[in-house]
Amino acid sequence: MKLVKIIGSVTSTIKDLSLQGFKLLLVQAVDTDLKDKHEFFIAVDTVGLGEGEIGLIVTGSTAKRTEITRHKNIDAAIIAKVERIDLENYNLES
Amino acid sequence: MKLVKIIGSVTSTIKDLSLQGFKLLLVQAVDTDLKDKHEFFIAVDTVGLGEGEIGLIVTGSTAKRTEITRHKNIDAAIIAKVERIDLENYNLES
Amino acid sequence: MKLVKIIGSVTSTIKDLSLQGFKLLLVQAVDTDLKDKHEFFIAVDTVGLGEGEIGLIVTGSTAKRTEITRHKNIDAAIIAKVERIDLENYNLES
Amino acid sequence: MKLVKIIGSVTSTIKDLSLQGFKLLLVQAVDTDLKDKHEFFIAVDTVGLGEGEIGLIVTGSTAKRTEITRHKNIDAAIIAKVERIDLENYNLES
Amino acid sequence: MKLVKIIGSVTSTIKDLSLQGFKLLLVQAVDTDLKDKHEFFIAVDTVGLGEGEIGLIVTGSTAKRTEITRHKNIDAAIIAKVERIDLENYNLES
Repeated sequence: MKLVKIIGSVTSTIKDLSLQGFKLLLVQAVDTDLKDKHEFFIAVDTVGLGEGEIGLIVTGSTAKRTEITRHKNIDAAIIAKVERIDLENYNLES
Repeated sequence: MKLVKIIGSVTSTIKDLSLQGFKLLLVQAVDTDLKDKHEFFIAVDTVGLGEGEIGLIVTGSTAKRTEITRHKNIDAAIIAKVERIDLENYNLES
Repeated sequence: MKLVKIIGSVTSTIKDLSLQGFKLLLVQAVDTDLKDKHEFFIAVDTVGLGEGEIGLIVTGSTAKRTEITRHKNIDAAIIAKVERIDLENYNLES
Repeated sequence: MKLVKIIGSVTSTIKDLSLQGFKLLLVQAVDTDLKDKHEFFIAVDTVGLGEGEIGLIVTGSTAKRTEITRHKNIDAAIIAKVERIDLENYNLES
Repeated sequence: MKLVKIIGSVTSTIKDLSLQGFKLLLVQAVDTDLKDKHEFFIAVDTVGLGEGEIGLIVTGSTAKRTEITRHKNIDAAIIAKVERIDLENYNLES
């Protein structure tokens, strides 16, 4: 999994039927110190994150295995809200 | 998923049988502000996009799970038309 | 899928049994204007391409789903010959 | 698989149900001489590693095939503790 | 598949049960002229390669589909020994 920050969302009315009803989040990869990386994903949210919050993204075939995304044609999903990062040298409350 | 722009198409008469009848789009990855990235894909279109329009691409095994692409031997498909991108600082109508 | 050019081949007598009888092509990723990129793959050819020709490569688990490569232990296959690329600004006959 | 060093952990109370009870390790990719690379993963530990120790990470669908992680919605797992690296020119006890 | 050179091995006594009995090779990606690239993998050997020899690596879910690695929790396997590389301009006996 990778650390990402929610930075926005995408609106799509014409889309694969399996995506109906899902919010499509725009997320940005972040470093372990939460600094932005220049890498973006569109992901389905399974835990209810708001803008600016930190989460974990799974990519690939795993993204369509959660209770909420089963059989949905996606390759990226947010599966956890990150509340705290503990590193040897410092801790971050996100 | 990733944001891409439709920039052209590819013609192939000699190809895997499962690809017969599909238009093969040439798409370019774009940033959240729709600036071009130097990354290209050939993808099957499942939603009917035209040149210059913005869509979402899924890659990997998910690409062959949509109603339209089931059992097709592809690793990239367009699954949504993006009409609007909302970011903290600005909105984009694509 | 990605655009690739056939640039050579690889000889292997000691190999996984599922690979017996397959030609292993050495291919190079190319840009939309067919300029070489510094990215190479060894792929199984399912359409019969010769050196210098342009094709489409699928990677990952899809590579072992074609009629020809079913149950073969590969992660890259050529699934189409590219005869023409149409872009907004120019066309290329390959 | 890739060589990684355990550098911390992530706390998440709101997460996919399949992740309940698992420690989420923060790991950093390392080179063959154990020098840090600027690449990080959040992974589930299946072998019991502590901070500073070296392990092997599997990514993609394989991550959810171990005895411990079966049917868990993850794309990265630690599957081995690395005790020693033997190279042509030198050996490293990690 | 990708071209790799065997450069060493990794010792692990604490590991996923499915890995018991397998040698874990340390391999380095190489270019078509066999020059080293700065990319490394830990892979299970299915063909019996020695240090300095050139092989083909498969990554992802394919790695656990060979006779030898079936149901093993790995994401990288050596599936062929490369004896010769033929390019338009030169041949290499490895």
